[in-house]
Amino acid sequence: MSWKIQSKNIDFEKLLIEESLFFNGNGYIGIRGNLEEGLPEHVETIRGTYINGYHDIVNIPYGEKLFGFPETQQKLVNIMDTQGIEIWVGSDQEKEKVSLYTGEVLSYNRILHMDKGLTERILHWRSRQGHELIIKFTRLVSFHIQELFYQFVTLTPISNPIPVQIVSTMNGDVKNYANRNDPRVASDDKKHIKINQLLQCEDYSFIELETCRSGLRSAALSTMKLSNPYAKYRYEMKKSAIVSTVDFQLSAETFLDKRTFIAESTRYEELRKELVAIKKESASLNYHEIAIQQKSYMNSFWNDTDVIIQGDEQIQEAIRFNLYHLLQSAGQDGKTSIAAKGLSGEGYEGHYFWDTEIYLLPMFTLTNPALARKLLLYRYTILNSARERAKEMGHKKGALYPWRTITGKECSSYFPAGTAQYHISADIAYSYVYYFLATNDMEFLKEAGAEVLLETARLWIEVGHFKEDQFRIDTVTGPDEYTAIVNNNYYTNVMAKYNLQWAYDISLKLQIEEPIFWKRLKEKLSFTEGELESFKQAAERMYLPYDENRQINPQDDTFLQKEIWDFEGTPAEHYPLLLHYHPLTIYRYQVCKQADTVLAHFLVEDEASEAVIKNSYEYYEKITTHDSSLSSCVFSMMGARVGYVEKAYNYFIETARLDLDNIQGNTKDGLHMANLGGTWLAIVAGFAGLRLKKNGICLRPQLPKAWKGYKFPLQYQGRSLFVHHNQDHFTIELLTGEPVTISIWNKNYPVTKDKPISLPSASNGGINV
Amino acid sequence: MSWKIQSKNIDFEKLLIEESLFFNGNGYIGIRGNLEEGLPEHVETIRGTYINGYHDIVNIPYGEKLFGFPETQQKLVNIMDTQGIEIWVGSDQEKEKVSLYTGEVLSYNRILHMDKGLTERILHWRSRQGHELIIKFTRLVSFHIQELFYQFVTLTPISNPIPVQIVSTMNGDVKNYANRNDPRVASDDKKHIKINQLLQCEDYSFIELETCRSGLRSAALSTMKLSNPYAKYRYEMKKSAIVSTVDFQLSAETFLDKRTFIAESTRYEELRKELVAIKKESASLNYHEIAIQQKSYMNSFWNDTDVIIQGDEQIQEAIRFNLYHLLQSAGQDGKTSIAAKGLSGEGYEGHYFWDTEIYLLPMFTLTNPALARKLLLYRYTILNSARERAKEMGHKKGALYPWRTITGKECSSYFPAGTAQYHISADIAYSYVYYFLATNDMEFLKEAGAEVLLETARLWIEVGHFKEDQFRIDTVTGPDEYTAIVNNNYYTNVMAKYNLQWAYDISLKLQIEEPIFWKRLKEKLSFTEGELESFKQAAERMYLPYDENRQINPQDDTFLQKEIWDFEGTPAEHYPLLLHYHPLTIYRYQVCKQADTVLAHFLVEDEASEAVIKNSYEYYEKITTHDSSLSSCVFSMMGARVGYVEKAYNYFIETARLDLDNIQGNTKDGLHMANLGGTWLAIVAGFAGLRLKKNGICLRPQLPKAWKGYKFPLQYQGRSLFVHHNQDHFTIELLTGEPVTISIWNKNYPVTKDKPISLPSASNGGINV
Repeated sequence: MSWKIQSKNIDFEKLLIEESLFFNGNGYIGIRGNLEEGLPEHVETIRGTYINGYHDIVNIPYGEKLFGFPETQQKLVNIMDTQGIEIWVGSDQEKEKVSLYTGEVLSYNRILHMDKGLTERILHWRSRQGHELIIKFTRLVSFHIQELFYQFVTLTPISNPIPVQIVSTMNGDVKNYANRNDPRVASDDKKHIKINQLLQCEDYSFIELETCRSGLRSAALSTMKLSNPYAKYRYEMKKSAIVSTVDFQLSAETFLDKRTFIAESTRYEELRKELVAIKKESASLNYHEIAIQQKSYMNSFWNDTDVIIQGDEQIQEAIRFNLYHLLQSAGQDGKTSIAAKGLSGEGYEGHYFWDTEIYLLPMFTLTNPALARKLLLYRYTILNSARERAKEMGHKKGALYPWRTITGKECSSYFPAGTAQYHISADIAYSYVYYFLATNDMEFLKEAGAEVLLETARLWIEVGHFKEDQFRIDTVTGPDEYTAIVNNNYYTNVMAKYNLQWAYDISLKLQIEEPIFWKRLKEKLSFTEGELESFKQAAERMYLPYDENRQINPQDDTFLQKEIWDFEGTPAEHYPLLLHYHPLTIYRYQVCKQADTVLAHFLVEDEASEAVIKNSYEYYEKITTHDSSLSSCVFSMMGARVGYVEKAYNYFIETARLDLDNIQGNTKDGLHMANLGGTWLAIVAGFAGLRLKKNGICLRPQLPKAWKGYKFPLQYQGRSLFVHHNQDHFTIELLTGEPVTISIWNKNYPVTKDKPISLPSASNGGINV
Repeated sequence: MSWKIQSKNIDFEKLLIEESLFFNGNGYIGIRGNLEEGLPEHVETIRGTYINGYHDIVNIPYGEKLFGFPETQQKLVNIMDTQGIEIWVGSDQEKEKVSLYTGEVLSYNRILHMDKGLTERILHWRSRQGHELIIKFTRLVSFHIQELFYQFVTLTPISNPIPVQIVSTMNGDVKNYANRNDPRVASDDKKHIKINQLLQCEDYSFIELETCRSGLRSAALSTMKLSNPYAKYRYEMKKSAIVSTVDFQLSAETFLDKRTFIAESTRYEELRKELVAIKKESASLNYHEIAIQQKSYMNSFWNDTDVIIQGDEQIQEAIRFNLYHLLQSAGQDGKTSIAAKGLSGEGYEGHYFWDTEIYLLPMFTLTNPALARKLLLYRYTILNSARERAKEMGHKKGALYPWRTITGKECSSYFPAGTAQYHISADIAYSYVYYFLATNDMEFLKEAGAEVLLETARLWIEVGHFKEDQFRIDTVTGPDEYTAIVNNNYYTNVMAKYNLQWAYDISLKLQIEEPIFWKRLKEKLSFTEGELESFKQAAERMYLPYDENRQINPQDDTFLQKEIWDFEGTPAEHYPLLLHYHPLTIYRYQVCKQADTVLAHFLVEDEASEAVIKNSYEYYEKITTHDSSLSSCVFSMMGARVGYVEKAYNYFIETARLDLDNIQGNTKDGLHMANLGGTWLAIVAGFAGLRLKKNGICLRPQLPKAWKGYKFPLQYQGRSLFVHHNQDHFTIELLTGEPVTISIWNKNYPVTKDKPISLPSASNGGINV
């Protein structure tokens, strides 16, 4: 089955997209899939290297700056470019540069090896003078040696011995990408880094940068070695680059081993010293050993994560692609999270959004809980910022998480679709609850979860109010960014209710099971019994809008009174609407950018009846444009939930290949992480219908017609489970751990190591229970 | 009775405010009341000279720029500073500069002569060496010679002959004022002008500037002449200034005559040539003749406009001050309007808002209809921009006037309290109707009014929609900027209804009375009968929110469901709220910055019952902070309307002296024009209770206890009327024109030249009808 993503493309426009598709990363470093040899001048490229969380600070400009608008924002910084490897062939007088656009390309292929955790480019090339050779660029960003970006070049001569010159560059003169007219990427193109140091030592080149305003340092240390012992090396120090050149005669297969070690000053102190040590340590490992390490890491990852689709190679490829890039982007150090574009590009300036909690954490929580815990921990590290932001927004207590951030400070300059999305605090609380349900990890609850739950619950008491026996939340924006600043957004209210309820439940639990800890926590937070009671009251009396007439949950108090958007009168090229209509115009109509109430019904399904969930799905489906990449996967999952398996399948197809096929047209700015996670959700929570509840795992498996079957592993409270659904059977095996009971279509089935659950599949795609 | 505003102040902070209070203007030019001799360095001053509508273009910065956000805005530009006159006394070795902060100030007085249309500063001063003299600076901006800024200095020696040197400067190196943290003034302090030419001719100095981006030129031509024939002149050209120096022995009263002629390139072509010609022409007039011209203009203005308050000198002074500065700020050429701060300062960047139409035009319309017509005409000149803006906002037809503008293009960068205020289009339509009711001017209706009414009415059809037999308008912001982006704002809906109704009525009228014109207009606008019918339908079925329970008109669909702002918990220093709370937080509560529904009840009173108007007044009064200067005057007028005359009086007091007493703390940035006009309204539409309706003038006169009486003139459909209310009688005289019937407390009374209306006053402040 497919472990490779391949491309023979040399078209400029598509190459720009491939820079994202073929990026290499390990959650710490991300390097876009640029061509080592570069591109002709004036061809658009985003040549980028990023460190998760490594940012500069920039002023946010406002025409009219009002109180509480953030003064500055953080911005992921493109650091030194160490990708450069040029290969020149021929004698001095007639040297030609090997590239896709010079000489003769006899064959070209680019491969992402998802099983091996690396990428390759293989070029069979002939110069105008007739020198013919095959070049293979292999590169990986190591999961074992977090700082290592490894380039390994194999040169195979086809013609007679060829004079070859290889020029390897480390360039400190880089900028971020900017486009003033696209709100989804940065608008200014100022320089954010300056060079502190360029240094050429006997066996390495070193460059240290510093961000202009945040004062964070980053460094890269590079070594280059050719397998040919007669090669001649030469180093040149330029104003902002170090150029290493090696000349040799290519007469047999030859290898260039280029290793770049990258680090920054928030997680490393003495950058050069530490990088030298790491270099030294890894010097004992040759290319093959490092590749084997990488493969072994990937094996373990795939073992816990791989989703298998039987009967659809294209989708199989896409799912693995998605999971692979999620892994490459996920911060593993408890200090970082997953940016909206991961480490694959600069879109949304490297900020972390709610995407991680709602779209990505379920996958990590149920396949790699240790990593999920790290991602959750990040939110705990910024809890103080969230507390400060709540105060700034006029609340006496509680934590208001920023809509977009790196360090914890709000970076959103357009508050109606930013700060107004108060739901993010409930989303974060939700992800802590989800993790707790999946792991029963009391230690983490005590370390971080309880505090986050209480502080977010406090926010709802602050922002909402009781009116005529209802608890109401005014003037917020829900997930749907085509409707802003409304009262009683169903999603926000239902998630706030969940947050309050769980804060209450967990408090009781801790009170009983961990009285000493609970006492300490209460003191630390000056938390009162009265507050606890208010959580209960607010949760119980939470107002959830309901429309008697249509028997649906309205998105907010006034949503259904608005006119429905004129979809017929909207030409196809006017999508996404946000790029063609003023937000005020969009807000005026019943039109959704993305799932909102439908997402709420996914996350908290027990608050609405089956009929209301289904009616709502049908209602909102008609008015949702899916202009956000966070939408289709929800409509897929919930399509399956309300019985439209084939519709669910169609949404799933859009979801699954969104970046591979550049469906939203902006994959060049980076991969849509939330959507990558949404694919996993669409299978596991969609077709298999998984929900995590207090009473355990609940499934509602269904098999789309196009597939022969699907399989996936799960981690649940210390157990390894394996789920397999094909046209004959639906089975769950318990691979390790204690027996457990699982609810399937509302009936409970025990599973033990000896006795898997096995139920016959039904002809309609479901199963016979 | 008081025609003077006087000040002996030399305190820096107050001087900054006096720069606004003592500004000179004529609707074309505005010159702040800066000191000729300047201030010590580092003392804050806004030294400014402005031409109405003369602007540069600046980029509007956005953190996230969305579709339809204006790229640029216009900005009133501070032009060359020609105010500079320094007086030095003493011999060369021991020269001392005359100023309020050197030597000995024996007496000092500053006077605004509202009857003469000029300002004076009189300084009795002694140098350290004992030279003693009296200096009187007189200045005026001429209403007769639009380009003329006149400074006339009288020097009277008290001690022995004094060696005197006068240094007069024209300085081209000026900047606008900026304050990044106050949304009410500009945030960037870039230079907006460059110098094109500095020129010293035999008898004049000339300086030409050009704005950096809009490319508009402006020029000043200055002459200086001393009455002493032995004076020695000398001119020095500096990098960006021309300095003229005159030396003489001051032994008898001596006069310095400095005239500066100012013009710009949108209304003048060859600046130097035209200014030279104007200079030549005015050269035949001496100071006294020009002062007499000015006085005669003022006589005529006061004759038509003066409001007399019997029994309160302070208020009398304030009312004249307000009317005077309105006149000084009102564009008289049909190409400009009245900026939010008039020509007195740079606050709100010299933009025109709805203030002109709703707060200022009633006064001009009923006292100086010719000038009112010019102000209305300005809106007609920007109708095309409003049409374009409607398109940009996604509407197929109609005109959406920009919230703030100079040239007609939207300059508002914060749309929730800018572009979202769609009501401005109805406000403009309203002002055309008001003018028509006051003048019956069919020619102007054909020239401009009909087109404006139709195009604004079209907007409402575009933006609103029928739902269950109601016409509803979603997602707009009403006048109250503490509540944004709501559905069915009562003010917006009722004003739109008025707009639609009048567009319909006027169309029928034209159809009958001016069939040829009507046909041409229909063709020009591609206007259909179906549209006309839709106006009627939408007006008739316009949804006007009403709360059965409280028997009030809710401000919008959800306003009453929100929590009431915690006024008790808000410290006094947290007002105005917009400078201390995030807008989202403010939007969440029932709290009003300013009159909204109450203003609607003033403008369109026949849409609500007496009881609803009164209940609404009481309801909104409790939750209105009056953080906007547009509020108190409305609460005064409507206080009187619902029977709270003494409450009305208290609001009126706040209104009347708002700038004179710097009540809002930002008079330094310019005078609050809308509030100046609001004072007139509070008397004429408040205490006298004047409304203009289809059946003519309606009055509900009431006399506050503190006053012996009030009097004011009115122009109505070619008539001059004079209204007088004292403790004995309420009288209306017809000074010129045909007899007419006037409604007083809902009874009709005829008035002829021979027979005034005269009714006995009642003991409660009303009258016996």
